[in-house]
Amino acid sequence: MKGKIDHIGIAVNSIKESIKLYSELLGVKPSGEEVLEERGLKVAFLEMGDTRIELLEPLNENSQVSKFLSKKGPGFHHMAYEVENVEQSIEKAKNLGFKPLTDEGQPGAHNTTIVFLHPKSANGILTELVQHNK
Amino acid sequence: MKGKIDHIGIAVNSIKESIKLYSELLGVKPSGEEVLEERGLKVAFLEMGDTRIELLEPLNENSQVSKFLSKKGPGFHHMAYEVENVEQSIEKAKNLGFKPLTDEGQPGAHNTTIVFLHPKSANGILTELVQHNK
Repeated sequence: MKGKIDHIGIAVNSIKESIKLYSELLGVKPSGEEVLEERGLKVAFLEMGDTRIELLEPLNENSQVSKFLSKKGPGFHHMAYEVENVEQSIEKAKNLGFKPLTDEGQPGAHNTTIVFLHPKSANGILTELVQHNK
Repeated sequence: MKGKIDHIGIAVNSIKESIKLYSELLGVKPSGEEVLEERGLKVAFLEMGDTRIELLEPLNENSQVSKFLSKKGPGFHHMAYEVENVEQSIEKAKNLGFKPLTDEGQPGAHNTTIVFLHPKSANGILTELVQHNK
């Protein structure tokens, strides 16, 4: 769907601790948890209406999220929007002055193709564009 | 709806500039703009699936968002979740160790009653709970 928020990534020190806000205060249980070894991450998902929150917990000090937490502490990490065609979006983004971090879409989780835009070009927010493959 | 993200607030220096990401890249036009004189704010809304983004531009140097921008630059400002009863949520939040910024719900925009939770208690994110009044 055009303009849909695919997910909102939040960096946390501990999924177990941080999930209290959702599960105990808001009554939303996590729909799943995944370990992404190659990115040094544990991720928990919370379905929130037609979008979802991803809680990102680092597994080791080398993960990007670990560096983020050391520098900024827990909080918003990135925002992902659904697009129909990520390659077309990359071209369009470049023409509009946004800075894609890669020239081509990369494989993402759950059969998606993704690209990130540099936060400096995108209102200070690390921005992900997500194409869901058929 | 329980657990729905009511809106995501993003602080920007200029709505006109920052809206390009949504209107030109993602094809989402703003659904409205409001000036909130008493808070020193101009706000633009973007409907994104069943939630929305609020772009917050300061009107003067005394607004909270102006201070936020000076300190952190543009980026994520706050996250708002829909709740059924804000007074009950305040009690529950206190019991769970979250820190509501007020002891009672406050009047919000569009016939809502709202409360903010201190970011230190809520995964580093200024968190708003929103009750839509009948």
